[in-house]
Amino acid sequence: MEIEQYFEDYALGDTRKTNGRTITETDFVVHAGHTGDFFPHHMDTEFCKTLPFGQRIAHGTMTFAIGVGLAATQINPRAFTYGYERLRFPKPVFIGDTIHTVVTIGTMKLDPKRDGFGQVVEKTETFNQRGETVMYCEHILLVELRK
Amino acid sequence: MEIEQYFEDYALGDTRKTNGRTITETDFVVHAGHTGDFFPHHMDTEFCKTLPFGQRIAHGTMTFAIGVGLAATQINPRAFTYGYERLRFPKPVFIGDTIHTVVTIGTMKLDPKRDGFGQVVEKTETFNQRGETVMYCEHILLVELRK
Amino acid sequence: MEIEQYFEDYALGDTRKTNGRTITETDFVVHAGHTGDFFPHHMDTEFCKTLPFGQRIAHGTMTFAIGVGLAATQINPRAFTYGYERLRFPKPVFIGDTIHTVVTIGTMKLDPKRDGFGQVVEKTETFNQRGETVMYCEHILLVELRK
Amino acid sequence: MEIEQYFEDYALGDTRKTNGRTITETDFVVHAGHTGDFFPHHMDTEFCKTLPFGQRIAHGTMTFAIGVGLAATQINPRAFTYGYERLRFPKPVFIGDTIHTVVTIGTMKLDPKRDGFGQVVEKTETFNQRGETVMYCEHILLVELRK
Amino acid sequence: MEIEQYFEDYALGDTRKTNGRTITETDFVVHAGHTGDFFPHHMDTEFCKTLPFGQRIAHGTMTFAIGVGLAATQINPRAFTYGYERLRFPKPVFIGDTIHTVVTIGTMKLDPKRDGFGQVVEKTETFNQRGETVMYCEHILLVELRK
Amino acid sequence: MEIEQYFEDYALGDTRKTNGRTITETDFVVHAGHTGDFFPHHMDTEFCKTLPFGQRIAHGTMTFAIGVGLAATQINPRAFTYGYERLRFPKPVFIGDTIHTVVTIGTMKLDPKRDGFGQVVEKTETFNQRGETVMYCEHILLVELRK
Repeated sequence: MEIEQYFEDYALGDTRKTNGRTITETDFVVHAGHTGDFFPHHMDTEFCKTLPFGQRIAHGTMTFAIGVGLAATQINPRAFTYGYERLRFPKPVFIGDTIHTVVTIGTMKLDPKRDGFGQVVEKTETFNQRGETVMYCEHILLVELRK
Repeated sequence: MEIEQYFEDYALGDTRKTNGRTITETDFVVHAGHTGDFFPHHMDTEFCKTLPFGQRIAHGTMTFAIGVGLAATQINPRAFTYGYERLRFPKPVFIGDTIHTVVTIGTMKLDPKRDGFGQVVEKTETFNQRGETVMYCEHILLVELRK
Repeated sequence: MEIEQYFEDYALGDTRKTNGRTITETDFVVHAGHTGDFFPHHMDTEFCKTLPFGQRIAHGTMTFAIGVGLAATQINPRAFTYGYERLRFPKPVFIGDTIHTVVTIGTMKLDPKRDGFGQVVEKTETFNQRGETVMYCEHILLVELRK
Repeated sequence: MEIEQYFEDYALGDTRKTNGRTITETDFVVHAGHTGDFFPHHMDTEFCKTLPFGQRIAHGTMTFAIGVGLAATQINPRAFTYGYERLRFPKPVFIGDTIHTVVTIGTMKLDPKRDGFGQVVEKTETFNQRGETVMYCEHILLVELRK
Repeated sequence: MEIEQYFEDYALGDTRKTNGRTITETDFVVHAGHTGDFFPHHMDTEFCKTLPFGQRIAHGTMTFAIGVGLAATQINPRAFTYGYERLRFPKPVFIGDTIHTVVTIGTMKLDPKRDGFGQVVEKTETFNQRGETVMYCEHILLVELRK
Repeated sequence: MEIEQYFEDYALGDTRKTNGRTITETDFVVHAGHTGDFFPHHMDTEFCKTLPFGQRIAHGTMTFAIGVGLAATQINPRAFTYGYERLRFPKPVFIGDTIHTVVTIGTMKLDPKRDGFGQVVEKTETFNQRGETVMYCEHILLVELRK
């Protein structure tokens, strides 16, 4: 769904919460095949029995891609991604965990280098079903100013 | 392949270059289905004709996941991912582009909070077939010190 | 396998039964990614615990596509699909259910608008391992008359 | 996104239009693998050169599943699917076509058999980039009445 | 479809020809992700420009798996696979090639080690649209003798 | 990783062992969809309850493709595949089994027909977590002689 929002339309502290999604063994296998990362931490149950967690853990790149993807429900034609900062994975994601993402408008400032644009930072936090944070990052958007 | 490396085994400026991989329309479709992000920028050729690039562009999360995945060829049991900083997408990836990744040991320092560990930053840069940077990030590893 | 059949070669009440197929969590994830329908009824085990069934249920579009697909073993070059009527899903499909399809020649009549063609209705019914109907539809074929 | 709507909240003639999506060769291959329907009409370019269209055409079950899936953006906890009627494929979908779906509230009536429920028919029509209808069906919803 | 055949029901020289299937870029990408073999011969168009063929060539394991899979249309409950001999790939498969398989009953003999069983060798040959052999193997079946 | 090796660089008896990989239900479903082989031995849990093994068993083509794929970690630009001999599946692979492959340089001889090339046979053996052999084959490489 398209929702047009200029820089001035964002409000500090605004928050939105996505649907949940259960991360399955299928997602692990698809992600390995998609990225070529078949490290045994994600793919080998026997090896994982020798690790502290005792089971396969999700690729960080998958937790990021799905965590961010869950929030991809509204398109703002006045904004585009500049980059991401402080990407962290405080807790691992296991097969069967159900995650959702909460996006909060963090900081807002005029872009120092681009006239007519502001920077909006969306604090993007993904939680599992126990309320633990499994992914955190700061998504930097460049957003047009209203003329 | 497992290659055991302690913090002291890393050398500033060391670099490794991955194989190349052509990003296909299939990768676009798989990534949309994997993440649930079906934004028309990635999926709708008619819509994209109205944009500056004139064609579908890759999801940033895909460029990151595959760019990092290309480098997932050697496992170091003494290291694990702490996070990523400064993730950027200077140029878009189009269908048919061929990308490869260059990993360079950037900075190294003792971890201020974890005794017995150092931080190694792998500057991870993904290039297309024209030598343009399509992804840049700083991968922070925590690596055990040799006792 | 190609089996040429003119309208006159179909016989009311003829029936054929397909192989069985177990519907897996993988099928759920593939279908969501294929269609873009990530509704929590299909994808979120925590949400589903709050529903009457207590677990994820298959997309109706998947039960239809696989139920019909199971019967796609013989090609008749004299027939093509006109459409489907009365598509229903009397019981849900759960992960781990094994389904098969029974196709019965229901009604046959000359096509009122197309000279030289007849309409054959294939009653297409998909059952689970408990003999319950999980999908029913009427597949309308247009079939050439023998000259 | 959840939007709670009782029967009384639907309005005859209301319409919503989805995003567009380009149907790719990947979708054809994924659908064949997902359903097991590898008929040469969808999978064999040499065979298709001998047919009137001269190229591969999409599975009807895929056009239906994706056409309906495009509209799966808002969840109404007061409604569920009863079935579909009059599913038709007036024009074929070719690789590279871009489709979108328009949903219109068609007819509304009290459910004759279920006290406290009404039937809402969503006329679901999928168009290609030339404005031709490639799928039509009537999606019957059962929706709770406001007490 | 199940077709029960005892050893005595096979006839030397009998042959069956499968449907055709166009091998797509999607198949290349799926096979790489399924097997973990991302060698640039299959995945990197720039690298392949430097090779004699000038383009990506299919994994041998894929040509084998799909070539054999094309013939998986009739199940004989009296037979099972013992193994394969002489697996060869005389010509490469390129993206866009259309292949089909011809199975011929090659040799038949009593199994020297298993009382009540015979060995049937199915010469399995896969051709492209130019009639060139892209895969050849000898599929050894163990088949029950009629009592 | 590219490792250039001439015929003279191979040594009889040299061996390398791959990472492990757990074979999942997802792999079964992906392989069926990739090859079109939906035989109930791989796909139908109810049918499989009537067989000696009591559960679904992997396609032989998948055990081969993944078993060989596990070893696809080093590219030798002086070698290419001639074919495979004696492909066998001594034990079945079940969902949840973890396999790895051991490659041993078996026999080496000058190629009788190709001047400047030798034949190297890699005995390729795939084991499950109980140390049982689930796949064996002889991979014949043609390798350039050093001038």
